[in-house]
Amino acid sequence: MNDVVKSCPMNGAESLLRTLVENGVEVCFANPGTSEMHFVAALDRVSGMRPVLALQENVATGAADGYGRMTGKPACTLLHLGPGLANGLANLHNARRADSPIVNIVGDHATTHLQYDAPLTSDIHGFARPVSEWVYTSSSSQQVGADAARAVRVASESPGQIATLILPADIAWNEAESVASCLAPSTPATVSAETVHRVAELLNSGLKTAILMRGAALLEPGLTAAGRIAEKTGARLLCDTFAPRIQRGAGRVAVERLPYFSEQVVDFLAGTELIVLVGAKPPVSFFAYPDKPSWLTPEGCRLTRLTEAHEDSLQALEDLAHACGATQTEPFRTRHKAPEYALDGDVNAEFVMQVIARYLPENAIITDESASSGFPYYDITETAAAHDYLNLTGGALGSMMAVSIGAAIACPERKVINLQGDGSAMYLLPSLWTQARENLDVVTVVYSNRSYNILDNELKRVGAMHQGQSAASLMSLENPSINWLSLASGMGVRAVRTETRKSFDMVFREAMQCSGPQLIEVVL
Amino acid sequence: MNDVVKSCPMNGAESLLRTLVENGVEVCFANPGTSEMHFVAALDRVSGMRPVLALQENVATGAADGYGRMTGKPACTLLHLGPGLANGLANLHNARRADSPIVNIVGDHATTHLQYDAPLTSDIHGFARPVSEWVYTSSSSQQVGADAARAVRVASESPGQIATLILPADIAWNEAESVASCLAPSTPATVSAETVHRVAELLNSGLKTAILMRGAALLEPGLTAAGRIAEKTGARLLCDTFAPRIQRGAGRVAVERLPYFSEQVVDFLAGTELIVLVGAKPPVSFFAYPDKPSWLTPEGCRLTRLTEAHEDSLQALEDLAHACGATQTEPFRTRHKAPEYALDGDVNAEFVMQVIARYLPENAIITDESASSGFPYYDITETAAAHDYLNLTGGALGSMMAVSIGAAIACPERKVINLQGDGSAMYLLPSLWTQARENLDVVTVVYSNRSYNILDNELKRVGAMHQGQSAASLMSLENPSINWLSLASGMGVRAVRTETRKSFDMVFREAMQCSGPQLIEVVL
Repeated sequence: MNDVVKSCPMNGAESLLRTLVENGVEVCFANPGTSEMHFVAALDRVSGMRPVLALQENVATGAADGYGRMTGKPACTLLHLGPGLANGLANLHNARRADSPIVNIVGDHATTHLQYDAPLTSDIHGFARPVSEWVYTSSSSQQVGADAARAVRVASESPGQIATLILPADIAWNEAESVASCLAPSTPATVSAETVHRVAELLNSGLKTAILMRGAALLEPGLTAAGRIAEKTGARLLCDTFAPRIQRGAGRVAVERLPYFSEQVVDFLAGTELIVLVGAKPPVSFFAYPDKPSWLTPEGCRLTRLTEAHEDSLQALEDLAHACGATQTEPFRTRHKAPEYALDGDVNAEFVMQVIARYLPENAIITDESASSGFPYYDITETAAAHDYLNLTGGALGSMMAVSIGAAIACPERKVINLQGDGSAMYLLPSLWTQARENLDVVTVVYSNRSYNILDNELKRVGAMHQGQSAASLMSLENPSINWLSLASGMGVRAVRTETRKSFDMVFREAMQCSGPQLIEVVL
Repeated sequence: MNDVVKSCPMNGAESLLRTLVENGVEVCFANPGTSEMHFVAALDRVSGMRPVLALQENVATGAADGYGRMTGKPACTLLHLGPGLANGLANLHNARRADSPIVNIVGDHATTHLQYDAPLTSDIHGFARPVSEWVYTSSSSQQVGADAARAVRVASESPGQIATLILPADIAWNEAESVASCLAPSTPATVSAETVHRVAELLNSGLKTAILMRGAALLEPGLTAAGRIAEKTGARLLCDTFAPRIQRGAGRVAVERLPYFSEQVVDFLAGTELIVLVGAKPPVSFFAYPDKPSWLTPEGCRLTRLTEAHEDSLQALEDLAHACGATQTEPFRTRHKAPEYALDGDVNAEFVMQVIARYLPENAIITDESASSGFPYYDITETAAAHDYLNLTGGALGSMMAVSIGAAIACPERKVINLQGDGSAMYLLPSLWTQARENLDVVTVVYSNRSYNILDNELKRVGAMHQGQSAASLMSLENPSINWLSLASGMGVRAVRTETRKSFDMVFREAMQCSGPQLIEVVL
């Protein structure tokens, strides 16, 4: 076999694939079709690329998002023309909002075939543009390797970007010469000493200050630096409602999360005189509502910026700690505290989070799309064992079903706990199949309230008060009710339903002690 | 309640909704979010619009496609911002390729909120453009009714188009005055007498002729006119491989379908000297392959056009029959013939289609996404009872799961039989839930071969011969295998698995005799 392979001239697909591997891309989340067959065939001639099959494209793109968040480096996708890309766009939207690095590879018809407007022909550039920092169509098998190297470079730009490379079928099958060499990785821009000095002076001016952080600032070294500054200056440490990734739990520096609803944020920030932005944007509401504010910086509060998203927040925070004289200051770190709860009484969302916090293993990853159920109880896991918490960044539902896959592949030694509303989980059921196929250590907890509960709330909030039968029918997930045990087992994932406190406590504890994919339906 | 409603001033959402109803739009396939809540609330104040909940957006857009194909008039969708639209794009691609009329309504943030780039903000225009003939963002509650009337008009333009209307939340909630009046419906353009005369002369010139038809030409009146012409002149009647809709079966004029693979088309058209296009485009291959042609009109064959897609094909065919002196000619009509088969032996895809043909009730609708399994046996249903056959027009998988919903809602008295590959059905499982919710008379037959069988073929065809472990892993739907009974019952659809000829014969026959959604897994 090896001799046969060696005697084949390299085609464009192989040049592309070898270049990706050469440039550090190790995983390909794929849902290929006919136009991608040469790429697929090349996977057996090139070592170093792990193909992971997704049965719907948002599984592939969402998994690439999760992988990018946990590793800081891009996976690639492999999608089938415009419609395949279209099916993956919602999770590319989330990935863009998470600043995740992704090399998004989309096959196309052969360049000679496009003129005929065959059924699958579409404006792939048009679909890709809203979610991509860079879109490029390879036009030569000789250069597709270089195109791939550029795509990796673009994707890896701080803080992480989506680079879409369109691969026409004939560019994949025509003869190529070589593998492109690795482009020097870019490093995040460093903020100036003047900026650090200016922020330090403001911090020392006695203003009531909040430091709003995102990106690298929310990983352990950044948190430690920020914790020193907070301890020294009295500033509060904040993160966005939907930070892409935050390291928290016992032993870590705690960060307060901005609440979801605008009126809650107003209360939360009341009295704040200075907000320092570290890789974050000023707080705004998720949705607009009649007669409620969208802009949430308190009136009269000063906004200043330490770092933009693409700048080196860790270095800047360490410089700022130095400028504040806090280098030796010991930050306050969260102490482990197991929640206490009774095993009688109704099962509610608060109880679910208490159980999760209690049994969370060291170094777990929580991917959270529990929406109206889990959201109010985020603070409960603050004092659990140290863990990473990944949020739904772009609001497109069906994200975390797939992000959990990428996180589990990126970190095979760590337990992933995926929190899902029943409404949100329905968007991307085939994620479960990939979890089973790859035997990933993901435990999905479905909060089964049989409704789009969040919309029921929102309907009232927007002032649309007269809920009749039609509106009610669009909020309810009853009639028929969804049987999560059937759905999960239909895709090879073992599943358990719990209806009492005692059973969820037991089932979740046991799930933390074994490995492999599992789904727990919690009836609320 | 009525008094309260009357005393409310009308808002933009209500003006929009009342205008849609006024303009003949009766069904709304919806997956709403917060920004669509005023539209949702208005549904209870306006009669005449049936809301149908979809748990993933491709269900909504695909259902609108099916509804449009069967009624010739638009349903509307209701989607949640850019990501909601993104999730529905693949089936809008198919709908565009089917020339289906759709009023595609996409909510957006309030106009005042867009400046803040909140997490769900995206380039909705950018997402919509590749699939829409018309994209417009309403900018005033006073005018949104008029915008809706224009959208209906655009969608209804012959042969059917997608009109995307973007509805910012504040346009929905601000006060409106009135309902827009109905725009005069457009009628398809009529071809000139000269064109008809020219084509008639060519038909009478003794050339070996094929008439390739699409759109209205494939419905009964068009078929009858075409049948007269064929009988008189000896021309063959052809349709595209993936005609959006064709009426066929016993009592109808038969039309030959172009084969799928390019080399088959070459054989099929060999010797043809004239191709007359009736609402169709010249035949091209679905995909390009190395060393195979994309353009499939035989060398030296003359191409002429009777009608463009937007022109009145029925009128043109009747005029052409007249010009050929065929008005009184009796066309050849298909005779009913029940297939004969043995009940012992292996279950294969041919047998499945024989059973379907045998028990097909009068006036059923077949929606076909059976790909490599069902495709070769299309001819078997030719002599079944009269029925409509809807094809996967744009190649984006997951289409017919949803198209069957729209067809069933459009034609509640007719049985819908949805043929699915197991790979393709996985793209859009929540379709089953909507089928159950609406108690639709859809029987889904899943050809369970546990592989992307079509790709396995394609891998060989593109000349990528060295299939190793990686390629194989991307073709197989085993490990884990999918349990269709669990998946269907998990969404409230009763399901049966058949593994023998006898059992499929019995189960399918019984399914034709009762009503309501059902899924039959045929193990191949």
